Amino acid sequence: MTRTGAGSTGAAYALGTPSHDAFFTEVGKGTPCGELLRRYWHPVGTLADAGATPRQVRVLGEDLILFRDLQGRPGLVHPRCCHRGASLYYGRVEAEGIRCCYHGWLFDVQGNCLHQMAEPGGGARRGSFRQPWYPVAERYGLVFAYLGPPSKMPVLPRYNLLDDLDEGEFLEVNDRSLGAGGGVIVPCNWFQHFENVVDPMHAPILHGSISGVQFVPQMGILPEVKFEYSELGVIANSYRKLDNGLTLHRRTEAALPTLRVVPNPRVRNFCRTESIGWVLPIDDTHFRIYVVGRVREAGEIEAYRTRFNGKLWADMSEAEHRDFPGDWEAMVSQGPITLHSEEHLASSDRGVAMLRRFVTQQVKRVQDGLDPLGTCFDEAGALVRLTGGQYLIDADGTPVTPAAEAA
Amino acid sequence: MTRTGAGSTGAAYALGTPSHDAFFTEVGKGTPCGELLRRYWHPVGTLADAGATPRQVRVLGEDLILFRDLQGRPGLVHPRCCHRGASLYYGRVEAEGIRCCYHGWLFDVQGNCLHQMAEPGGGARRGSFRQPWYPVAERYGLVFAYLGPPSKMPVLPRYNLLDDLDEGEFLEVNDRSLGAGGGVIVPCNWFQHFENVVDPMHAPILHGSISGVQFVPQMGILPEVKFEYSELGVIANSYRKLDNGLTLHRRTEAALPTLRVVPNPRVRNFCRTESIGWVLPIDDTHFRIYVVGRVREAGEIEAYRTRFNGKLWADMSEAEHRDFPGDWEAMVSQGPITLHSEEHLASSDRGVAMLRRFVTQQVKRVQDGLDPLGTCFDEAGALVRLTGGQYLIDADGTPVTPAAEAA
Amino acid sequence: MTRTGAGSTGAAYALGTPSHDAFFTEVGKGTPCGELLRRYWHPVGTLADAGATPRQVRVLGEDLILFRDLQGRPGLVHPRCCHRGASLYYGRVEAEGIRCCYHGWLFDVQGNCLHQMAEPGGGARRGSFRQPWYPVAERYGLVFAYLGPPSKMPVLPRYNLLDDLDEGEFLEVNDRSLGAGGGVIVPCNWFQHFENVVDPMHAPILHGSISGVQFVPQMGILPEVKFEYSELGVIANSYRKLDNGLTLHRRTEAALPTLRVVPNPRVRNFCRTESIGWVLPIDDTHFRIYVVGRVREAGEIEAYRTRFNGKLWADMSEAEHRDFPGDWEAMVSQGPITLHSEEHLASSDRGVAMLRRFVTQQVKRVQDGLDPLGTCFDEAGALVRLTGGQYLIDADGTPVTPAAEAA
Repeated sequence: MTRTGAGSTGAAYALGTPSHDAFFTEVGKGTPCGELLRRYWHPVGTLADAGATPRQVRVLGEDLILFRDLQGRPGLVHPRCCHRGASLYYGRVEAEGIRCCYHGWLFDVQGNCLHQMAEPGGGARRGSFRQPWYPVAERYGLVFAYLGPPSKMPVLPRYNLLDDLDEGEFLEVNDRSLGAGGGVIVPCNWFQHFENVVDPMHAPILHGSISGVQFVPQMGILPEVKFEYSELGVIANSYRKLDNGLTLHRRTEAALPTLRVVPNPRVRNFCRTESIGWVLPIDDTHFRIYVVGRVREAGEIEAYRTRFNGKLWADMSEAEHRDFPGDWEAMVSQGPITLHSEEHLASSDRGVAMLRRFVTQQVKRVQDGLDPLGTCFDEAGALVRLTGGQYLIDADGTPVTPAAEAA
Repeated sequence: MTRTGAGSTGAAYALGTPSHDAFFTEVGKGTPCGELLRRYWHPVGTLADAGATPRQVRVLGEDLILFRDLQGRPGLVHPRCCHRGASLYYGRVEAEGIRCCYHGWLFDVQGNCLHQMAEPGGGARRGSFRQPWYPVAERYGLVFAYLGPPSKMPVLPRYNLLDDLDEGEFLEVNDRSLGAGGGVIVPCNWFQHFENVVDPMHAPILHGSISGVQFVPQMGILPEVKFEYSELGVIANSYRKLDNGLTLHRRTEAALPTLRVVPNPRVRNFCRTESIGWVLPIDDTHFRIYVVGRVREAGEIEAYRTRFNGKLWADMSEAEHRDFPGDWEAMVSQGPITLHSEEHLASSDRGVAMLRRFVTQQVKRVQDGLDPLGTCFDEAGALVRLTGGQYLIDADGTPVTPAAEAA
Repeated sequence: MTRTGAGSTGAAYALGTPSHDAFFTEVGKGTPCGELLRRYWHPVGTLADAGATPRQVRVLGEDLILFRDLQGRPGLVHPRCCHRGASLYYGRVEAEGIRCCYHGWLFDVQGNCLHQMAEPGGGARRGSFRQPWYPVAERYGLVFAYLGPPSKMPVLPRYNLLDDLDEGEFLEVNDRSLGAGGGVIVPCNWFQHFENVVDPMHAPILHGSISGVQFVPQMGILPEVKFEYSELGVIANSYRKLDNGLTLHRRTEAALPTLRVVPNPRVRNFCRTESIGWVLPIDDTHFRIYVVGRVREAGEIEAYRTRFNGKLWADMSEAEHRDFPGDWEAMVSQGPITLHSEEHLASSDRGVAMLRRFVTQQVKRVQDGLDPLGTCFDEAGALVRLTGGQYLIDADGTPVTPAAEAA
C-alpha cells in the first residue's frame, strides 16, 4: 500500500467559500465594472453583420438586434418590440427602419415609431412611442455601439496603429476571437483573457515547455519582463536573449476599455504592433474578440492562429486539448468567473496586479462621478496612440534590422 | 462613417427591471391565476392517452400519471407512490387500478390503497393510505381533469358548438396544438396565445403583409374590429370589405377558462364556428392546445393548419422561420412569460386589455371566496352557448348565402 | 361518459410543500451528513485511474484531480491551481508531482509547491504556497481518499470478507456501479440506494412479480424478514421457504459509511458474502458504486449484473425500461433527492427506518464532537468483521450443504 499524508496540513477541507472580485469582472448594467465599460464604445459586429436580416447580438449582458435599414443606416435596438414584446429578430427591414412582424410597428434606427400598421391612419399617437435603442457608429470595418448613459457618450476613438498605414498595407477584420486560442465564443469572463495579455511569462511555459512550440521557437525562451503603466492600461516589455547575441523585445499592452495590443506571436515582422483586438464581454461568463489589423495580403490575420502539433484547435480531440493545452484551456478552466479569493499571486504576476488596480481605479472614478481615462468628447482628441511592437535590439538596447539577426 | 444618434433620448440604457403580471399568467397551485384555473376542468389527454400504459402528463405545473384500469376507468394520480416515492410511471395497470413497481402497493382511480404486496395479508392498515389523485371525466373524445379544491368542483360543461351536429357531421379530436402555428408543446406562457385569439388585427399583418398569404387572400384585408364582452370572455367581431361589395364578418371568442373559439381562418364555410380549442397551460412557460371540431371528413381539422409558402412549419428551416414568422414566432419570441411592464398598448389592443381585465376580475372573485363565471354545479345548467362564426353580410348587415358571394 | 370521483377526499390539491431530510442525504462540506461522511475513507477510483494523465473526479460534491506521480505516489488535489486558478486537469505529471500548464508551478502529492517556473530561481517563496490536497491510500485495488478534518483522520479499514481468501480465490474490482441496476453514474441521492440494501421485500416484487425473473426464480419467493442492528449499520435476514423443505437464508447489511454487503442475488454459492460495494456519493444527486469481491475467475463480478428478459439494462429501450423496471427505475424515479415528507412507511420498511435512525445518530455524534462508529485510529483495530452471507438451512435453522438441496 502506498499512502499519502496523514495529519499533514494544507488539506482542501480547510477551503472557505470562494468569491470573485466584481470590480473588474461583472459587466451587467448597474454593476461597478459594467458601468465603467458602458462609458466606452464596443464592437458589436462587422459591417456585414449589420444588414437587411436582423441579427441577434449579446453585448455586456444585453440582448439586442443589429440591422441596417435599406438606406444604409446601421441600427441596434432592444429585441422586444415596445408594443407587445414580439422580437424584432422577426422584423422586416425597410428603407426607413425595422417593422415588427406582429402588428407592423415601424421603428427607425433611433427607435422612433414611424408607422403603426394596425392603428387608424398609421397611428395618431405613434410619436409617443419609442423602441429602446443604442447609438452605433462604423469604423475600421466594425460596427461599434455605445450602451452607456446618453449624456456621457464619448466620441468614437481612432488608433494610430490602424490609421497610419505603411505602403502596401490595408486593414483586415477578423471576428473569430483570434488570440483566445480556441473557438469564437469563449465561455468565461472577459478579464481572464485581459489578464493573459499582460502575462508574458505564460507564453514560454504554456505555449512552449508544456505543450510544445505553439508559435515559434523564440517564444519558448523565458524572457525578462518589465511592466509599466501606459495612459490607458498596462504594458509588458519582455526581453528574450537570442542565440545570436541580440535580444527580442516585445511590448504588449492591455488598454481601456478592452483592447489587446499584442505583436504577432508568430514573430514574422519586427515592427509596431500589427493589430488591435477588442475583447467584447458578451456577458459575465462569455466573451469574444474582434481584431482589426494592418496586412499586405488577405487572410494574414487568421494565419496568426496558434497551432498545436500543426493542428488547429478546432480539429483537435478532447484528449489532445487535455494533453496540449493552450490559452483557451488555461482561461476557461479557471471557471466561468475565476475565484480571486483562492489565488496567490507571485512576482511574475505584477502585470496582472497592475491591470486589476488600474481598472479598479477607473471603476471608482465612474462611481465618483468622473469620466474614466480614455473617454474623449471632441473629435480633435479622439486619436489614441499605442506604442506596442516587437523589435530586435542589441546589448545597448539599440534596435537593429532583421537582416542583422539573419546574419 | 455612418453614425446613428448622439445625445438622443430613448436609449435602452434607461430601461428598468421588467416584470410580468401574475394575475393572468402564472398557473401554479396557490398563485392567483392558478387558483382561478383550478376551478375548471381541463383536458389532460385524448381517450387513447388514458390506457394500460401509464402516461406522464404535466398540467398547471403539476406532474401527474394518466392511466385507465382494465375495467375501463380513467385515473389521474400523483406520480410519487405515497409509500416510498417510486414513480407510478413504472406502475403496472391492473383490473382494479395501478400497482407500484417497487413494493407492489395497488391504488384505484380514486387513490384508495387496495393491496400492499410486501405487507402481511396484503396490508392490515392499507385503508389508511391514499395515493394523491384528481377526478377525471371523459367527453368529446378528451379526458378532462379537475385539479381544484374538492368542495368547489363544478360539473363538466357541455358546449352547443359540439353538442348540436348538423347532418353528416361528426366530432374529431386534434391534440397537436392547432392554432399555435408551430409545434405541439409551445414554450411560452398560455396567455400569450389567449391574447392572440382576440387580436384580429395581427392576422392581415403577420399572416399577410409580413409573411405572405398564410391562410387565404381575404384574411389579408385589414378589418374593422368591434370588441364586446361575452358571458365568459371577450368577442372580437372583425369586418372585411370584399371586392364584391359584401363584408366578411368573423366573430372570434376567448372564453373561460382557456377556450379559443375561432372560425376556420382558411375560410371554407360561412357558418357558426366549427371547433373549440382548449389552451392547456402545461406550466408557467409551456402550453398546448386540444381541439375538438365538427367535421364531415376525417382529418379536416389538421387541414386548418397554417402553411407558409406551401410548407408546414415543421418542415421549415430556422432561416425560413425567421423570414416568414407566424403565430409561434410572435408568441414565443415574447419570452417565456412576456414582460407587461415594457408594453405599450394602443387602440387596436382593446380586446387584449378587455381580456386581461376580465380574467383579473375572475381571479379576484376567487380571492373573495366567490365562484368564478362559467362554473356550474348542476348538470341542468352545464350547457355553454358560444356564438362565434363567420358570415358574409351585405351593406345592411344582413347575412347572405355564399352563393351570393360567388355571383 | 366514465367519470371518476366527485367530492371525494384525498385529492392531490391538498398536498403541501414537500421536503427531504438532510440528515441522511446531503453530502456537501458543512452539511450534517456531509460532515459524518467526511470522517471516513471513500474510494475515488481504481488503481489505474490514478495515473500519469490527470483525471477529474467528483466526490461528496467536491471536484478534484486524481493522478499518480512518476515515482508511483497517488495524489488527489483541488483542481484550481492555487496560483491563478487554471485547472490541474491540464497539468503535466512529473516525477515529483503535477505541474500547472499555465505558469508551471509544480506540486507534490501533498500539495507542497516544489517549483515555480515563471519565478526567478524557481521561486524563492515557493515554500509558502500549498495546493489544497487530500490524503489518499490504496487498498483492495482501489484508491481511497479522506476528505475530512486532518486531525480526525482514521486508519483505512480492512474487511474480513476481502482479507481472508479461500483457496483459489482472488480479489476483483468492478467500478461500474454493479447493484444499481443500470448505468455507472446514478442520477439520484446515494441514500435511495443505501435504503434499497436493507429492503429485501422489494426483491420478489420489483425483480419478480412486476418485471419477471431478474435474478433467479428463488428470489421471487416472498421472504420472511428479520432486521437487526449490527455494529456498523443494519442487517436484514430474509428467509425463503423452498420447495424442497429447506429455507434460503440471506443476510444482507448496510454498514457505515456507505457499504453494501449483499450476497450474490443470482444465488450461485451458499457462503459468506462474496463482495463489498462502496456507494460513493458523487454529490447530493448522483452516486456510483465501487465493488471489490472474492472471485475464482476474472469477470465474475460483472456477471452478477441483472438481466431483464435476458437483456442488459444498457441494451434496453426506454419503453422496455418503463415496462420492466428495476432498481435503477425505482431509485431514480424517486427524484434527485426523495421527498421524505410525502412518504408513508409500513411494517416492511422497518429496515429503512432503522437505517435512517442509525445514520442520524452518527450524524449527531459528530455534531456533539464525538467520533462516529467505525472510525479507528490505530492499525491494530482496523479490521472490520462483516457477517453477511446466504445459506440453506433446515427447519431447525441448521445450515445444510448445497448438495442436500440438490438431492
